[in-house]
Amino acid sequence: MEKIYDLIIIGAGPAGLTAAIYAQRARLNTVVLEKLTPGGQILLSEKIENYPGFPEVISAQKLMKQVQKQAENLGTKLNYEEARSIALEDEEKIIHTSGGKKYKTLAVIIATGAETRRLGIEREKEFIGRGISYCATCDAPFFRNRQVAVVGGGNMALQEALYLSKFAEKIYLVHRRGMLRGEKILQERITKNPKIEIIWRSVVDQIYGEEKVKGVKLKNLKTKKTHNLPCSGLFIFVGLKPNTEFVQNILELNEKGFIKTGENLESSRRGIFACGDVRKNLLKQVIVACGEGALATHMAEKYINEVKGIEYK
Amino acid sequence: MEKIYDLIIIGAGPAGLTAAIYAQRARLNTVVLEKLTPGGQILLSEKIENYPGFPEVISAQKLMKQVQKQAENLGTKLNYEEARSIALEDEEKIIHTSGGKKYKTLAVIIATGAETRRLGIEREKEFIGRGISYCATCDAPFFRNRQVAVVGGGNMALQEALYLSKFAEKIYLVHRRGMLRGEKILQERITKNPKIEIIWRSVVDQIYGEEKVKGVKLKNLKTKKTHNLPCSGLFIFVGLKPNTEFVQNILELNEKGFIKTGENLESSRRGIFACGDVRKNLLKQVIVACGEGALATHMAEKYINEVKGIEYK
Repeated sequence: MEKIYDLIIIGAGPAGLTAAIYAQRARLNTVVLEKLTPGGQILLSEKIENYPGFPEVISAQKLMKQVQKQAENLGTKLNYEEARSIALEDEEKIIHTSGGKKYKTLAVIIATGAETRRLGIEREKEFIGRGISYCATCDAPFFRNRQVAVVGGGNMALQEALYLSKFAEKIYLVHRRGMLRGEKILQERITKNPKIEIIWRSVVDQIYGEEKVKGVKLKNLKTKKTHNLPCSGLFIFVGLKPNTEFVQNILELNEKGFIKTGENLESSRRGIFACGDVRKNLLKQVIVACGEGALATHMAEKYINEVKGIEYK
Repeated sequence: MEKIYDLIIIGAGPAGLTAAIYAQRARLNTVVLEKLTPGGQILLSEKIENYPGFPEVISAQKLMKQVQKQAENLGTKLNYEEARSIALEDEEKIIHTSGGKKYKTLAVIIATGAETRRLGIEREKEFIGRGISYCATCDAPFFRNRQVAVVGGGNMALQEALYLSKFAEKIYLVHRRGMLRGEKILQERITKNPKIEIIWRSVVDQIYGEEKVKGVKLKNLKTKKTHNLPCSGLFIFVGLKPNTEFVQNILELNEKGFIKTGENLESSRRGIFACGDVRKNLLKQVIVACGEGALATHMAEKYINEVKGIEYK
């Protein structure tokens, strides 16, 4: 007979790994599917300052290694496979992976997170790795003593601009609005940093260069005037795109593609839960994702017991 | 002119301290009111195994010290005062403390947590500290080589019974149902522990003794039969009672006294938010409380900006 899992967790970032910790403690027969590397999107950040429990700054790398270890110590099984689709068959869910494998399970927790969004302008794709980057922590050292532009005004843009200032000679922070959105503590650091200059109410209209990025054409949204800004790097942090393509046909998503759930984190399909950045939640933070991961397993366990006819009495 | 705070956080447990970390990073003018000791109800537990980030078991004491330090490093002001009431005056909230002080603020986050509930039987109050306890971590050493009873079947009851087994000679776990509710991993440890015996479907009907507890009369809910169980300690873990007396006249509470909120953690009054164990949420866990604390501040900040007329544009 084919094996039927209690629970499959898709994604091994903060939300998925926390869900796994709770699943192991609940002794659910579980496997975690991860398409690439455990740790999630937060690994693109250098360090994390606001995860409660670490008064000294901890590297994102180290924190996530520890969470992974905690999950593995409890017996978490991590399979390196990418979920391609979920099919429903009565109470069972069948997950097909890109490697051609098939998993049967009673409940699913989707914790596939989100990626940085593309700007969506011409030549953007062509220049990826040739000046365009979505991760300063990964690529900053290539821009030592160079001039770079950063697009965005949220936490990620500010953090990454600050990180870049350790390498680049000059950073232009290009933001479409007249004020920043990221945490005030980060805004203060940006303002104090002599290498960073903010270009307000402006967007990148064009990217120019031959083999590599040589500069961008900026457009001021108020005056409608454009001007060229020479730079050898363009770092883009303009929001998140959830990893929900593989469920777009079966789950209700919001207009940006995030999974809609109720307070109990259940999606529009019974037995399929979502937590962390992939969910239409109100704050994208590691601590929030972890809290949701714990709750998702708790609710999944209730559902599994119900399906199995186990009643607490 | 009287000082008006942006935000007052009531309670310095996991939820309140996380809210404070985020408030400091958002540069909100904030004070945290704590009636007794920072750290919250979790300090009554010995250790914590399921808070992501600590693969080795960490003591609850140590974890909460670290969270407090993190909040204080960022400049959190902690005032040792007990909130007695909240009054509303246009956009402002006025908090009166039992020490007779008055705080004016735009927004409030209630993170006062919950306490272990009393059983509600005769002589219970009389025997507190004379055999009756709501905290094994605090009182277990007094029961070295003695026989004790533990009432409850949830996580707390199981954890505390296990902790007691390091000291007591014999532990009877009295539970009103026919199965336990706590995590399976804890259930397994209970079953394996030779010192612990479960008494199913039973409740404590009476406590007897003179100066101190000498035993309890148990009643089997199925057979309706009673029998005496001699013991010198009775540890009670039958659920939580939220600390909401001080707001019961102004906020909507559920039938058990927990604060009702929407997904954005706002209570029935605009500008008053709730997070952690005091809230009518679905899982009482440190990681969940911390996640909610972060979100509460995020939503409070939005509210404060709105009241101040600061618009992100």
